[in-house]
Amino acid sequence: MAFDTSSLPLPTIAATVPAPTYPAVRQQTVALVQPLLPEDTVVQPSPDVSPPKWHLAHTTWFWETMLLGQFLPGYQVYNPQYAYLFNSYYNSLGSRVNRADRGTLSRPPLSDVQQYRAYVDEHMARLLAQLDTLPPLAAELLELGLHHEQQHQELLATDIKYILSTNPLAPGYLASEATAAPTSAALPDATWLPVPGGIYALGHQAEGFSFDNELPVHEVLVAPFELQNRLVTNADYLRFIEAGGYRQFQFWLGEGWDLVNRENWTAPLYWSQAADGQWLRYGPRGLEPLPLAAPVSHVSFYEADAYAQWAGARLLTEAEWEVAARYFGATTRGGTWLESGLYDPQPLAPDADPTQCHQLLGDCWEWTYSAYHPYPGYRRAAGALGEYNGKFMVNQLVLRGGSCATPENHIRLTYRNFFQADKRWQFTGIRLAR
Amino acid sequence: MAFDTSSLPLPTIAATVPAPTYPAVRQQTVALVQPLLPEDTVVQPSPDVSPPKWHLAHTTWFWETMLLGQFLPGYQVYNPQYAYLFNSYYNSLGSRVNRADRGTLSRPPLSDVQQYRAYVDEHMARLLAQLDTLPPLAAELLELGLHHEQQHQELLATDIKYILSTNPLAPGYLASEATAAPTSAALPDATWLPVPGGIYALGHQAEGFSFDNELPVHEVLVAPFELQNRLVTNADYLRFIEAGGYRQFQFWLGEGWDLVNRENWTAPLYWSQAADGQWLRYGPRGLEPLPLAAPVSHVSFYEADAYAQWAGARLLTEAEWEVAARYFGATTRGGTWLESGLYDPQPLAPDADPTQCHQLLGDCWEWTYSAYHPYPGYRRAAGALGEYNGKFMVNQLVLRGGSCATPENHIRLTYRNFFQADKRWQFTGIRLAR
Amino acid sequence: MAFDTSSLPLPTIAATVPAPTYPAVRQQTVALVQPLLPEDTVVQPSPDVSPPKWHLAHTTWFWETMLLGQFLPGYQVYNPQYAYLFNSYYNSLGSRVNRADRGTLSRPPLSDVQQYRAYVDEHMARLLAQLDTLPPLAAELLELGLHHEQQHQELLATDIKYILSTNPLAPGYLASEATAAPTSAALPDATWLPVPGGIYALGHQAEGFSFDNELPVHEVLVAPFELQNRLVTNADYLRFIEAGGYRQFQFWLGEGWDLVNRENWTAPLYWSQAADGQWLRYGPRGLEPLPLAAPVSHVSFYEADAYAQWAGARLLTEAEWEVAARYFGATTRGGTWLESGLYDPQPLAPDADPTQCHQLLGDCWEWTYSAYHPYPGYRRAAGALGEYNGKFMVNQLVLRGGSCATPENHIRLTYRNFFQADKRWQFTGIRLAR
Amino acid sequence: MAFDTSSLPLPTIAATVPAPTYPAVRQQTVALVQPLLPEDTVVQPSPDVSPPKWHLAHTTWFWETMLLGQFLPGYQVYNPQYAYLFNSYYNSLGSRVNRADRGTLSRPPLSDVQQYRAYVDEHMARLLAQLDTLPPLAAELLELGLHHEQQHQELLATDIKYILSTNPLAPGYLASEATAAPTSAALPDATWLPVPGGIYALGHQAEGFSFDNELPVHEVLVAPFELQNRLVTNADYLRFIEAGGYRQFQFWLGEGWDLVNRENWTAPLYWSQAADGQWLRYGPRGLEPLPLAAPVSHVSFYEADAYAQWAGARLLTEAEWEVAARYFGATTRGGTWLESGLYDPQPLAPDADPTQCHQLLGDCWEWTYSAYHPYPGYRRAAGALGEYNGKFMVNQLVLRGGSCATPENHIRLTYRNFFQADKRWQFTGIRLAR
Repeated sequence: MAFDTSSLPLPTIAATVPAPTYPAVRQQTVALVQPLLPEDTVVQPSPDVSPPKWHLAHTTWFWETMLLGQFLPGYQVYNPQYAYLFNSYYNSLGSRVNRADRGTLSRPPLSDVQQYRAYVDEHMARLLAQLDTLPPLAAELLELGLHHEQQHQELLATDIKYILSTNPLAPGYLASEATAAPTSAALPDATWLPVPGGIYALGHQAEGFSFDNELPVHEVLVAPFELQNRLVTNADYLRFIEAGGYRQFQFWLGEGWDLVNRENWTAPLYWSQAADGQWLRYGPRGLEPLPLAAPVSHVSFYEADAYAQWAGARLLTEAEWEVAARYFGATTRGGTWLESGLYDPQPLAPDADPTQCHQLLGDCWEWTYSAYHPYPGYRRAAGALGEYNGKFMVNQLVLRGGSCATPENHIRLTYRNFFQADKRWQFTGIRLAR
Repeated sequence: MAFDTSSLPLPTIAATVPAPTYPAVRQQTVALVQPLLPEDTVVQPSPDVSPPKWHLAHTTWFWETMLLGQFLPGYQVYNPQYAYLFNSYYNSLGSRVNRADRGTLSRPPLSDVQQYRAYVDEHMARLLAQLDTLPPLAAELLELGLHHEQQHQELLATDIKYILSTNPLAPGYLASEATAAPTSAALPDATWLPVPGGIYALGHQAEGFSFDNELPVHEVLVAPFELQNRLVTNADYLRFIEAGGYRQFQFWLGEGWDLVNRENWTAPLYWSQAADGQWLRYGPRGLEPLPLAAPVSHVSFYEADAYAQWAGARLLTEAEWEVAARYFGATTRGGTWLESGLYDPQPLAPDADPTQCHQLLGDCWEWTYSAYHPYPGYRRAAGALGEYNGKFMVNQLVLRGGSCATPENHIRLTYRNFFQADKRWQFTGIRLAR
Repeated sequence: MAFDTSSLPLPTIAATVPAPTYPAVRQQTVALVQPLLPEDTVVQPSPDVSPPKWHLAHTTWFWETMLLGQFLPGYQVYNPQYAYLFNSYYNSLGSRVNRADRGTLSRPPLSDVQQYRAYVDEHMARLLAQLDTLPPLAAELLELGLHHEQQHQELLATDIKYILSTNPLAPGYLASEATAAPTSAALPDATWLPVPGGIYALGHQAEGFSFDNELPVHEVLVAPFELQNRLVTNADYLRFIEAGGYRQFQFWLGEGWDLVNRENWTAPLYWSQAADGQWLRYGPRGLEPLPLAAPVSHVSFYEADAYAQWAGARLLTEAEWEVAARYFGATTRGGTWLESGLYDPQPLAPDADPTQCHQLLGDCWEWTYSAYHPYPGYRRAAGALGEYNGKFMVNQLVLRGGSCATPENHIRLTYRNFFQADKRWQFTGIRLAR
Repeated sequence: MAFDTSSLPLPTIAATVPAPTYPAVRQQTVALVQPLLPEDTVVQPSPDVSPPKWHLAHTTWFWETMLLGQFLPGYQVYNPQYAYLFNSYYNSLGSRVNRADRGTLSRPPLSDVQQYRAYVDEHMARLLAQLDTLPPLAAELLELGLHHEQQHQELLATDIKYILSTNPLAPGYLASEATAAPTSAALPDATWLPVPGGIYALGHQAEGFSFDNELPVHEVLVAPFELQNRLVTNADYLRFIEAGGYRQFQFWLGEGWDLVNRENWTAPLYWSQAADGQWLRYGPRGLEPLPLAAPVSHVSFYEADAYAQWAGARLLTEAEWEVAARYFGATTRGGTWLESGLYDPQPLAPDADPTQCHQLLGDCWEWTYSAYHPYPGYRRAAGALGEYNGKFMVNQLVLRGGSCATPENHIRLTYRNFFQADKRWQFTGIRLAR
């Protein structure tokens, strides 16, 4: 266990996908909301979910507060009350509307939020034109703001899905003819791929942007392990359900078992069973037959772990995931991303090479059995930026790899996403290790 | 105490105001929503409040379910799922969306609800054209439906006020120049007017419509009493506040005292105090200085009773109220009603005759100290209509007289409104007795 | 409807049962706790229920605070902290332990509370010896204190029953051989007895003690009505259950129907059904077969009203109940009272005279469909006594007649007991009217 | 960073303290309850806390279920209902009383639970006499049972403290003259001690008992770090309070900040400030002045982390803690343990060697910034034992080192204790690293 693989070549994701730019990112946000009616942009069926109108405004407030107010001389805020309405969680930046009350606010209306966006975009264009003359912090905040808005694009996609799904009319987000549901050709069994142990350097080591939670780079000792060559599919997961997985406590963490019983969970979020026994799921076109070969998605950490227990396996740690992604040279090519317009994880090709590791990037975030804690040597930044990541570092688990709702140029092999163990409305899936 | 005054002439309200008609009622509902943006029609900041879009659809569903489905041959429902979405509380008519979740539903959008209204109006026109040929029940349900929709007009006015008031932007419902705030000329002290005791017949005894809860007519013995010639004003109530009324338990019912402390109530709903001590209230044009001579409104039963205790007086019973209204020959003339477009109780004229009893009808509902229980001999109707009133007859208090949000041809002297003791979002006020 | 029956002879209950005395009342309280273990006196399985140790101490605190502190010169309180521990709900007398936290207090132990009782009894003996020399208020407070402690005797009996019943071991309060369960000889159908209408004077009109809520005497007009000659039995109520009464919304008030579904109620409190279908109930000797002829007890107001609806009848109003009790000359003789040591309502003799009205006093409190509101002209007293009754006068219903847990010399025909509509742990039963 | 220190000598704690034996462990449990009154053994002021009577019975049920039922032929359970009453959380072993309802059960009384203990002890004596003839599993379960009961001894000590502390009489557990409060001689500033980095083997590697969560032994790479030579003291922590630590969000994790505001925390559990500003704490003799030199205790993870942030430092990881404990050759000597009878962490001697690391074992559990997750290769056992540790491995943090409520022969350097981040009723303290 002595050889040092920290010199494994770093992935060159950045080379294959251009970095985000201000106009493209801003346009993508608007495009996500385009299929909605004004009424859809207001509601909040769960405290976890924010109204689309709020996302449109909050991302705009971020530019106004972080960039324009500091760096564009003479800038007048569009509306001084918006700081109260559209601050998400920054204590440094004053008081704000309770998160759970975002869905009670009808004003400002969507049209005004669109004007707000236009106003800020116009001023940002002026700022960007003189970026070279500004302190380096301006360019850093620009980069952060672009990645911030991309994070909200993923939330927009998943929040919109949740909002429409809770409506008894179950409207589709996409026109029903827009895209086909994933086909359901049966996949061969997953294969197990070995990864050698060693000392590896984790964390962001390449050029370009990363969040502060991906730093500092630090070495970890990883024992040899095996992982499956693909994500767990709906067909796989159905076998767990049919084996009584949701009714047998021994597969479950205690908290998970309590939750399953309290909420009467019997399947992933968005699944339902018709009177004739057929399994359906709410997808981008509304209710559809369950696509069996597609990766299972919208499972909580508790379900992911219970599935692994049932299968005689386990989840990866985040260190193992990052090592495997480097070892197999994972790139974003072939993964399903936000830009695909599919909003749905796609099945692996039945003839995919069983000796290669697939679906590491895109399609579904992979729950790891690692707590979202600071890397050794991490220190929270001062001021509002210190609230961006550091204050969430307890009682959440790390997810890796991005999903079909992640912009392709937003992901990195070192990217650490994080959610509480009970959350299911993101595109969260399962990969097994042993 | 022997003379029988049950032969007091019945008020002739019906003579002064024409009864509601289908086109006028339907138009009034739409007019109330006209100043709103689509986004305003969706939200639900409290379980007590329903989204305006829901009111528009629910009142339409009522016509479809109660009339068209039964009496218009070949009628096709607009959308079979709307029965689930827009049933309010009729167990007889199937399952339904939880009341507290009405604000999470963005679909159908407002435009579709407007089409739904048009579709039903068109079919109702056909049904009305042949009303003479239909069983008498059809005409009875027509009358009930009109009064049902008028009840929702009052709820629309008060729900809209609440929805806009909770928005940090505090937008007005009316344009700020639309109407003037009530002036605040000081009023003379209220006078006490005696009413003789006797046996009185209560309940609906006139021609025309009444709800079943106003029947049967029955005799009650009422002891002589006195009541004040006008409603308690904001100026009166301010004296209670300034005397520490909200901080002294001895004025309060136990439940009320607990509530005041739990919710930190220090004034009626919609009141706030500026940094300089000035009292403001949220009104139809947004935040405005408190109009001192206007009747106090938006108080709970607990506050009404505590005020009366502090003043060394008491609230009326509903029998006393009805007797007084007959004794003084109250009519709707001079009261403030929905049709005024003011949405605000108005002050009494300073020179109003102090020997007459004013403001009995319109402006503010008057809390009585009478439980909303069945009249002797009342029996709930069978079927869905049996759920209209009877099942609410516990743990609510009767309010009398109508308000500035009540259509003028909706009220009667025998009208029994009812709410739980803690509710404040209706135009609820205070009249003292002793 | 003109004849005045207010001159109906007042019942002479006081003549047949001697009034309570200090030593007898104090001894009865202790006797109720005697069968318990120290551990039983501490626990509180529901916020409605108080630990027996708390009752022992609170009733003692009442004497100390209301009598000794005011009228016995030089009296030293036993422990100054007990005012905080054992005040029930008197805001006038300072802050106190939250009601729901009474069961978390192990100290003072039972033995100390017993010493506290002895200390207070010894000083009360001194005070009683000089009662003639004290202001009349002392004798009034003595009388109030005795009735106060008797109220807590009823609560002790019902709280103890609840405490032992929630224990999975279901221990009996009485030794199993102590008393026999009521026999279950079938009863003849109830008969309907008419009561003439008229103007009646309600409220306490006799010599002797009453609570302030029984005053002032006032006249009411009561229409002719009929009531059943006995309480509804367990056998009667079982027919309601077997007819699906708990599964059909149309019999229920809306609040009651919500409660039935939320709590999964399918029978009165303390009833259970064995695997073989036999109905059991928890009674004073533990789990026993349901005594069919005994009056149904431990039902909420919602259940009482739903039963009446199902039976095509209704509950009495409190005015009707008081008129009937006078009309039929009800006395406490033959009723089951606390002193019987049975703690269980007893069946009517099968050969009881069907033309007489039975069980009006004792056995079970009878839910009326009357709100617990102030009588006309009632005013809350100043100071702590003003908190005794008046502050509870909203959202509760009146019960009449006393129960098998009421001391016989505590009841009056004018006695107004009151509970919220959902409460079931008192001996609450049903009598039908029409 | 290449040298391998996994060969650091293992601590020989076992050599200095004899392993627990059945009679000694059983006697210690009883001794802890001895100062209590029967009433004290029943109550449960928080769902986290169990009544002492429950602990006495549950530990006995464990022997009955795990040993006697399996290995003593013909054994009759003392009472078949006790499996329902005294099962803690084993789904494998059937249904059970809700944890939060343990304090509502008065029966069986303490005296019966004592008989239950005697009955089981008598039969265990028989089983122990023939242990050599039984399968090895019996001896393994014996060892597990002893450590299980020792865990409940720690809970007994901390639960009793909580129970007595919530009583407004604030009774002491120890007689006030029993032991002196820790003196408060000021301590010198803590020093920083370096620990070299390297690959270390973590987990139980010695002879003798360990829990399954301490296995498997596995290697980790630890970077060089420094830790303080002693625990943070009350005096240290007071500076944080006085610097406004509880009022400045920037030191806190988001969840912690929400909790501080929701619960109005301003100091550790058991601290209070007298009217004159003096800091008091509830300790084993009741309310006492805060002992400034003693280690701060009864802080949540959130407070420990906020303190570290304020101090410009951080908490240790559990790997760092275990490495440091080995590196400094920590033993149980000099630590404060349950057997001391002090129930209170003790101050370090002012002249303690500043180049040595003190208080690693005993006095206070040390919060680590490590999630309680499975060690690599850990698998949950089958059956009831699989529920002992594994099912809790999410959303808890590891604590290390034992406390003044831990039996001295219960601790190990590899011992992993775990609690949720908000828990404060254990003796939980702080050590800083950087």
